[in-house]
Amino acid sequence: ARRQWSAHGWAQAADGMAAVTSLMRAQQIVLARVDEVLRPFELTFARYEVLMLLLFSRSGSLPLNRIGVRLQVHPTSVTSAVDRLETRGHVRRTPHPTDRRAILAEITEEGRATALAATEKLNDTVFAEPGLPDGGIDTLVGLLNEMRQAAGDF
Amino acid sequence: ARRQWSAHGWAQAADGMAAVTSLMRAQQIVLARVDEVLRPFELTFARYEVLMLLLFSRSGSLPLNRIGVRLQVHPTSVTSAVDRLETRGHVRRTPHPTDRRAILAEITEEGRATALAATEKLNDTVFAEPGLPDGGIDTLVGLLNEMRQAAGDF
Repeated sequence: ARRQWSAHGWAQAADGMAAVTSLMRAQQIVLARVDEVLRPFELTFARYEVLMLLLFSRSGSLPLNRIGVRLQVHPTSVTSAVDRLETRGHVRRTPHPTDRRAILAEITEEGRATALAATEKLNDTVFAEPGLPDGGIDTLVGLLNEMRQAAGDF
Repeated sequence: ARRQWSAHGWAQAADGMAAVTSLMRAQQIVLARVDEVLRPFELTFARYEVLMLLLFSRSGSLPLNRIGVRLQVHPTSVTSAVDRLETRGHVRRTPHPTDRRAILAEITEEGRATALAATEKLNDTVFAEPGLPDGGIDTLVGLLNEMRQAAGDF
């Protein structure tokens, strides 16, 4: 496609197009692999990320809006992830102790056990072998961060 | 999160987790930016990619299954993208001239005009400034390809 871009007189944008397309395709393949590993746990990557955020939090709970900010996803996505996690008994909604307008999502014991079991599996089958050369991870993460910032990330 | 991974005794998988998480977040931010640019054209990136594939094809048409293979997406995703593009008059379905079981998606004149206008806009606002240093694109694309292969891409 990069060649096509140049052939159409868009040479200046060809590299950027290739970077974006490559990013989309890599994400699609890796997400499919991750979701396949998470399926037996009835988790998606989005729900897994919410669970891990709660697991790592000091009190095991966070306000819904904080979850959205931390994962950089829309409030409606947080709501729907927490809905699904609550249905499965992995989290419960509780009132915020001081802020009456805020709602906390709190991880349950079952949620913790599921998060840890899913992590073991992801570590073994995906994360331990990302398929990158020594030093490649830091380079990749650095370049992806630059792309995020260019796309208006904060 | 990388620190948390190490603190939990998962140090061996921490780099891979960081790479995957970074990939997901970058894709999410860049896709949001791209979709924002495409919205006035009533396109998503998935539909835009189908249109460009047809635009670049010699005859302006491709069998639906070939589109799926080229974009590495599930046949149902191709069907739904082509449905939406057909509703907007950007493509039309036609019978394959020699294979009775195959259906072609053919780009219309309006589809061509929309694809070109959307590309001008994407080139100007996203692709021309991917925010990467000189040589960074080739490095990034190379590393993303390695991740794809490790995740089972072909």
